Amino acid sequence: MQIDTIRWVSGKDPDHLPGLVRLIDQTRLPLELHYIETRALEDILHALRVLQVRGAPAIGIAAAMGVALAAQHALEKGNDLSAAVAEAAEALAATRPTAVNLSWALQRMRRVAGAGAGLPDRDRVVQLIREARRIRDEDEAICRRIGEHGAALLRDGQSVLTHCNAGGLATAGYGTALAPVYRAQEEGRRIHVFADETRPLLQGARLTAWELGRAGIACTLICDHTAACVMREGRVDAVLVGADRIARNGDTANKVGTYGVALHARHHGIPFYVCAPVSTFDPHTADGAAIPIEERRAEEVTEGFGPRTAPPGVAVYAPAFDITPAELVTAYVTEKGILQPPFEFEDYA
Amino acid sequence: MQIDTIRWVSGKDPDHLPGLVRLIDQTRLPLELHYIETRALEDILHALRVLQVRGAPAIGIAAAMGVALAAQHALEKGNDLSAAVAEAAEALAATRPTAVNLSWALQRMRRVAGAGAGLPDRDRVVQLIREARRIRDEDEAICRRIGEHGAALLRDGQSVLTHCNAGGLATAGYGTALAPVYRAQEEGRRIHVFADETRPLLQGARLTAWELGRAGIACTLICDHTAACVMREGRVDAVLVGADRIARNGDTANKVGTYGVALHARHHGIPFYVCAPVSTFDPHTADGAAIPIEERRAEEVTEGFGPRTAPPGVAVYAPAFDITPAELVTAYVTEKGILQPPFEFEDYA
Repeated sequence: MQIDTIRWVSGKDPDHLPGLVRLIDQTRLPLELHYIETRALEDILHALRVLQVRGAPAIGIAAAMGVALAAQHALEKGNDLSAAVAEAAEALAATRPTAVNLSWALQRMRRVAGAGAGLPDRDRVVQLIREARRIRDEDEAICRRIGEHGAALLRDGQSVLTHCNAGGLATAGYGTALAPVYRAQEEGRRIHVFADETRPLLQGARLTAWELGRAGIACTLICDHTAACVMREGRVDAVLVGADRIARNGDTANKVGTYGVALHARHHGIPFYVCAPVSTFDPHTADGAAIPIEERRAEEVTEGFGPRTAPPGVAVYAPAFDITPAELVTAYVTEKGILQPPFEFEDYA
Repeated sequence: MQIDTIRWVSGKDPDHLPGLVRLIDQTRLPLELHYIETRALEDILHALRVLQVRGAPAIGIAAAMGVALAAQHALEKGNDLSAAVAEAAEALAATRPTAVNLSWALQRMRRVAGAGAGLPDRDRVVQLIREARRIRDEDEAICRRIGEHGAALLRDGQSVLTHCNAGGLATAGYGTALAPVYRAQEEGRRIHVFADETRPLLQGARLTAWELGRAGIACTLICDHTAACVMREGRVDAVLVGADRIARNGDTANKVGTYGVALHARHHGIPFYVCAPVSTFDPHTADGAAIPIEERRAEEVTEGFGPRTAPPGVAVYAPAFDITPAELVTAYVTEKGILQPPFEFEDYA
């Protein structure tokens, strides 16, 4: 039942080269489950830019695999491997500025490339592929642990509300924000999910509703602004959201609209949980004000479904993310347990 | 520059019969400014149901004109006039349950029909047409007075945020929530408007952005959930919204999403004004809990733009309105001034 969001497919030679990346084209969901298979860095860059792959953990995995593809290509062409890795990492880093998992994964790939300097190129490529696959496999295990910790917060028959998609499609496993719901289901508890549709690109309607339906979990789709209504009606027991970057003080960047949901949850006395792997916590960002916020094209708002739905020339403000201040977050659900700031991870000196 | 949302067009005989109703088909905006002209009650019923005409004051006008068309038709066919009026009023009342202006306007038409019993049918029809036109013309004057009172709240260079469309397209004049903005412009002050796009039918993107652009008023379109962000960024000086029904205690039914905007405004210390004619205040409804909330079809959310954007069979909760409790409303801007509950209108015994 698990979703095969992104994986590395080994090649046929003795070193399992040349491999390829296989990922779901999420822009075609929910109507079509189509897989992209590619050996080209350009396709990964495109997939990141147009959100064929999205969600902070999946973005990190895609970036790592993009570096591996670039290295593999350099090996085939006899090009300089270190230069190819550096160039690929730079191009990948520029695709999505907010998700810190992207730079975190690229940092791991750069470290492996650096440590392998002096080895034969072929060995270095194999190491890079292994690291990218490790990042993916670790993510799968991390999602399970997030699910275990988060499921303990949910009782049978409860309803949670989520914004955007922080499910299996955002990760290599069964998600971050949805992991507790999947885990509770495995433990025999029924949880109902209100899915914010999440304008402009409707990740909630297209992706969250799709993957929950596939898993047999009851889901009710609502327009984003209806979250306040269902909370007022007493129909929401907890909010679970993912994160694209969490600053040292706990301020959290996530899909735009999350801040409003957090305000509503606070007003209605509903716990608000941010579910994310430790790799989403950024020791180098003091607070939310220091997190760069990507702005998306106006057309995603004005003609996101084909026909134009706003007058030509209208000004549009379309941030992709917003910042939820730490004081609105009840707790952070991670693979290391349910945490509160100040965080005490290894690199948080 | 004023928008000709809905009007009665006189016929050519000495009594100006047979007249017709001319209204903008708002479902075709912003791409096409198309007028519907009709002498058939059925077309008015359809226009109300599919939101070719919408907005509480315009709904009231359309209903009154629908009764006038039905009466005119009965006269032509030699049918019983009182029965035709009663049937038309009943059918019209059933189209939109939340907007109280609908029943208010129908009540006025029924009263005129009742008072004319005994007169020749032709005279009664002329009276009914006159009453429907009066309701329209009064609305135009009321909008101007709402604008005058509301404009006093706005200073040059300020930004307001509005939800849905409570502009000229929702009335016969220049709107309720947008009236203060238009009036301030006439008085030489520049006001910028953040327009919530207003899912699912995008009245903010399609209608508010269109009519403000046409009037040369600066407007920035945002997704609904982005309202909280622009407030947090300190970019909103006031919220102006319309209303579909205001209970005796001030609880206000308006387009779904308004409640969330009111919560955000309160959190950020921004004044939140409900702009509405006295006809929107319902002496027969004690509080918000007593206001019936229309639910719309799921397809307005799942395939509102043509292509389906949610998995088949997904549950959808799509209320058309929500209730903003009176304690979140800074003040009510009406043609009688800027008010606070308890209201002291004539029929509020």
